[in-house]
Amino acid sequence: MNVIMLSGGSGKRLWPLSNDVRSKQFIKFLKRADGTYESMIERVFRQIRTLDDAEILVTTSKSQISEIKNQLGDSVGVCAEPARKDTFPAIALAVAFLKDVKGKDENDTVIISPIDHYVEDEYFSCFKRVEETVNGGVNVALIGIKPAFPSEKYGYILPEGNEEICKVKEFKEKPSAELAEKYIQNGGLWNGGVFGVKIGYVLKKAEEIFGFSSYEKLFSAYENLPKKSFDYAVLEHEKDIKVVRYAGEWKDVGTWNTFSETMQDKSIGKATFDCGCENVHVINELSVPVLTMGIKDVVVVASAQGILVADKCASSYIKPYVEEIDEKIMFAEKSWGSYRIINVEDGSLTILITLNAGKSMYYHEHARRDETWVVIEGEGKVKIDDKESTVTVGDVIKIAVGQKHKVSAITRLKLVEVQIGKDIDVSDKIKYSE
Amino acid sequence: MNVIMLSGGSGKRLWPLSNDVRSKQFIKFLKRADGTYESMIERVFRQIRTLDDAEILVTTSKSQISEIKNQLGDSVGVCAEPARKDTFPAIALAVAFLKDVKGKDENDTVIISPIDHYVEDEYFSCFKRVEETVNGGVNVALIGIKPAFPSEKYGYILPEGNEEICKVKEFKEKPSAELAEKYIQNGGLWNGGVFGVKIGYVLKKAEEIFGFSSYEKLFSAYENLPKKSFDYAVLEHEKDIKVVRYAGEWKDVGTWNTFSETMQDKSIGKATFDCGCENVHVINELSVPVLTMGIKDVVVVASAQGILVADKCASSYIKPYVEEIDEKIMFAEKSWGSYRIINVEDGSLTILITLNAGKSMYYHEHARRDETWVVIEGEGKVKIDDKESTVTVGDVIKIAVGQKHKVSAITRLKLVEVQIGKDIDVSDKIKYSE
Repeated sequence: MNVIMLSGGSGKRLWPLSNDVRSKQFIKFLKRADGTYESMIERVFRQIRTLDDAEILVTTSKSQISEIKNQLGDSVGVCAEPARKDTFPAIALAVAFLKDVKGKDENDTVIISPIDHYVEDEYFSCFKRVEETVNGGVNVALIGIKPAFPSEKYGYILPEGNEEICKVKEFKEKPSAELAEKYIQNGGLWNGGVFGVKIGYVLKKAEEIFGFSSYEKLFSAYENLPKKSFDYAVLEHEKDIKVVRYAGEWKDVGTWNTFSETMQDKSIGKATFDCGCENVHVINELSVPVLTMGIKDVVVVASAQGILVADKCASSYIKPYVEEIDEKIMFAEKSWGSYRIINVEDGSLTILITLNAGKSMYYHEHARRDETWVVIEGEGKVKIDDKESTVTVGDVIKIAVGQKHKVSAITRLKLVEVQIGKDIDVSDKIKYSE
Repeated sequence: MNVIMLSGGSGKRLWPLSNDVRSKQFIKFLKRADGTYESMIERVFRQIRTLDDAEILVTTSKSQISEIKNQLGDSVGVCAEPARKDTFPAIALAVAFLKDVKGKDENDTVIISPIDHYVEDEYFSCFKRVEETVNGGVNVALIGIKPAFPSEKYGYILPEGNEEICKVKEFKEKPSAELAEKYIQNGGLWNGGVFGVKIGYVLKKAEEIFGFSSYEKLFSAYENLPKKSFDYAVLEHEKDIKVVRYAGEWKDVGTWNTFSETMQDKSIGKATFDCGCENVHVINELSVPVLTMGIKDVVVVASAQGILVADKCASSYIKPYVEEIDEKIMFAEKSWGSYRIINVEDGSLTILITLNAGKSMYYHEHARRDETWVVIEGEGKVKIDDKESTVTVGDVIKIAVGQKHKVSAITRLKLVEVQIGKDIDVSDKIKYSE
């Protein structure tokens, strides 16, 4: 089975755990049996791989690639979108990639799915039935989720009958609660955005809409492709659609309210509650403790990015407030490890850098800042202006403006990096191949 | 006028803005006319100095001396208590210091006052009247505060009459609200802990209780002096007491509830409120923003020490929770500037050190850690194993275990200090004179 997973998201609704580079699917909050935590993207990959033959391609923006490789490993299939467009260009590009780069056949079926839902394993068995339905000769097959309540946030699929798999009569966009109630009474299902199609079907649509459908052309013209959603560009005009029912748990975990419902414990990280707290959840990524006293129905979230204290219902309306808060990205996971800004001054930044064993940074230089590295854990190798040396705990490395440099981890390596300069900015970086 | 100010406090009730070295009187939260903030100790000193001739001696534990000098300057008179005893030994030592070290006369009057109250300037005019009352021939004169409400937290003074200054009939310890109401109806006043006495009076009591009254003997025997409060040791047995009335604002700012009442704005530091917040105060000492949404009657406090989110009433019961939270001191003000721990790892600490212009650290060494300094602001001088050099922005200084070292600031100097070693602890320090 071919699966394309769409990894997007702005990272505003789950601020301060998400930011412009860490969307909600990367937040590690789902407790594994061993007590450690996994993210939604890690969970989905684990679940989907129980379908033995699943070949997964993740389509995403450039800004998420490091994070994806950090969490899923370097070998994960990734199709990078050269710009932020809507779902149809992204899907067309990924499908063309499967055909032109991966050598798949036009007649192969592909399942396209968002990556940021919390679901039961059973959900992925529905992927199989979607594939079978398309293979059985229907243009599009969807998953329809049995609604848990008359939500105003989701689109609805109205099926023609009551069969497990049946034809779709109509789609309805986000309705009022009253209308939603009526849809549900008439057998309406939530549209979770999963659908199966033939590769050739998508490429034909691309040909019609863009005038071309090869990966090379789509990639080079990507910046100029029109923004169109798959729903708008394709589904609205398609009559031959069937829906596969799913009745298990399905959560989009898009707000702090649903996020806290999905937490197994009432806190992650250091947290203390007095006996007056009711329905309070704390997620604390900082090393210092959070103490909550006498509050009700509140979520408290602390990270290197900021601190949120919100009534759970009010937390759904967070987006405009986060957009107003002037935001420097304070932490990120990279393909080689992670970084966290630990001190900000005028003319200086101090950063904790962690490189995973065996990983390397790109060889690069800066035009406007000097850097000093102090190794605080592990062993590694540094290369400065083509000169290599090994480093270990306590070693100090000075890198002047204009010096090419990189560090590689032999064991897990932690550095305190002190940047000094005017106008320090992540964009001040020239990468070199070696 | 001689004034002895008692500076104590455990720093638990206003956690996380206070800690074991920063008690509430040092927290800068009172807005000055120019928009900057001052602490209660700074405010009290500013107010008391409007009494032209006030000579102030602060009596305190060793742990607070650095903080006092940081906020009040090196020239402030400080009498260090060699151990934590109750108020009578502290007062006896300070009074003996005035006589034996400062050359005051037994017949001089001294006003003894706590340092951690928020009051109007008028309060300090009452100090004058207390002094005059003692000079007029009474053993003890107190300030009695007109109660704002029937508090159960304060002791009450019951005066004999209604005169502005009159004899005290009786003291009552912290009563029930009902009893407090009755005391107030009978003209009862809060006991704010301010009293005037003759120097000779205190020394005579010390002689009676300890068997000696010289500064030298009190100082050297201090560790073994019995813990006794001044109230218990002296006031309870004294009949010749008068009270001076004060009817202005008086707050002990001992809980987050009273603290927030004293704030001029609803926030200090970076804070955003949605329109659903009611009676919410935010004090944020971190560089990242706090966002509050849809909460009521809550105080949110964030510092390098931790994060508190508390219903304002519930916040009064904070002490046992803070005692449970395992606490490393994450920031402190020192006589030379300040430090803040910005990263904690197993085997490594990273610290931001700020030295004020013209200030120096002690010359010292460590037995169990190497240190690296990276200068990120200013100019200074370092001395390592008796070798001196000047340093400026970008310079890196490595200090190995056992190397004597110090740094002095020419202009304000900021360093990132990376400590590496096993069992890193503030007690690992040997100081040297130069």
